[in-house]
Amino acid sequence: MPKVTEEHKERRRQEILEGARRCFARHGYEGATVARLEEEIGLSRGAIFNYFESKEALFLAVAASLSYRMTEIWLEHGFRTLLDAIVAEDTDWLAVQLEAIRRIRTEPAFRAQAEALDEETAAGRPERMAKLREHGLREDMPIEVVATFLSLVANGLALRVTVGDQIPDLDLLAELVETGVSARGRGNP
Amino acid sequence: MPKVTEEHKERRRQEILEGARRCFARHGYEGATVARLEEEIGLSRGAIFNYFESKEALFLAVAASLSYRMTEIWLEHGFRTLLDAIVAEDTDWLAVQLEAIRRIRTEPAFRAQAEALDEETAAGRPERMAKLREHGLREDMPIEVVATFLSLVANGLALRVTVGDQIPDLDLLAELVETGVSARGRGNP
Repeated sequence: MPKVTEEHKERRRQEILEGARRCFARHGYEGATVARLEEEIGLSRGAIFNYFESKEALFLAVAASLSYRMTEIWLEHGFRTLLDAIVAEDTDWLAVQLEAIRRIRTEPAFRAQAEALDEETAAGRPERMAKLREHGLREDMPIEVVATFLSLVANGLALRVTVGDQIPDLDLLAELVETGVSARGRGNP
Repeated sequence: MPKVTEEHKERRRQEILEGARRCFARHGYEGATVARLEEEIGLSRGAIFNYFESKEALFLAVAASLSYRMTEIWLEHGFRTLLDAIVAEDTDWLAVQLEAIRRIRTEPAFRAQAEALDEETAAGRPERMAKLREHGLREDMPIEVVATFLSLVANGLALRVTVGDQIPDLDLLAELVETGVSARGRGNP
């Protein structure tokens, strides 16, 4: 029964990602040793690295999975809900992602894996842009610019949340962003 | 002649900050040992730590100095010029700042110093807000929300530049942001 096997594999993959996320968040990238990953995930290194070829690959897969989830929230529920999701995110995990950026920049093998993963996700971009168009955005700007703009606000918020800043007036902030990019402009209900 | 002494001290302080910035950018926070700091700055540890009480304090002072410079560019020359300045920033240094966030979060002494520095700079905030008001911003939102919004876009851009992303259409992006926050709204020259 290959279907059951696929389902089982996907469930196992998700378990590994979630355990790895907790482990990286708790111990940092460096501190998340293979022994600690085994302990937090509850599987042997053999089982873990059967699904992900290296610690780098595992880390990047956790990051990609969070990024995918956030994009889904944005497209399905709008920008205001995305801001809430960012503020509610595990800041320990966000901090580890930031810590890893320097490593991705300076270690060629790590960087190559990150770029390969980026190309994989690029395949889904046209579909996501089409979905974003349904949000009633201003049309005097290319949709890609509007998308970049919204993602910069989201990235900036994630960064500030990680540092420990309190961002007040999230409602007003979302209103400012949304009236700035909506087709209606502002003051036009 | 106390005035000369003050000028000399300030010049020396700036030299230390600039050398330290290069050293942190090149070797990472951890890798910037006291010996390497001495070498890059060209002064003995005694001289360096006469100006800054610790490596943490030195690092935070470099970060604060960059942040201050960026704010000045924004207020003096506008948001478009700030975006250019961010894109032109030394990405190695930006990456070290990100790397240090986790440390600031997890090391209480480091964190306390960061918070103390933050309170110092808070003193200049009302003046900066007054200056920002001169930029002709929309008045249906508190100026603090507009300021937070603009800083999130800037932070988001810095993060993406650090990761190595190319952000195309910086002109359109700036136009989108500026028409979104200007008192005139968009389409009204």
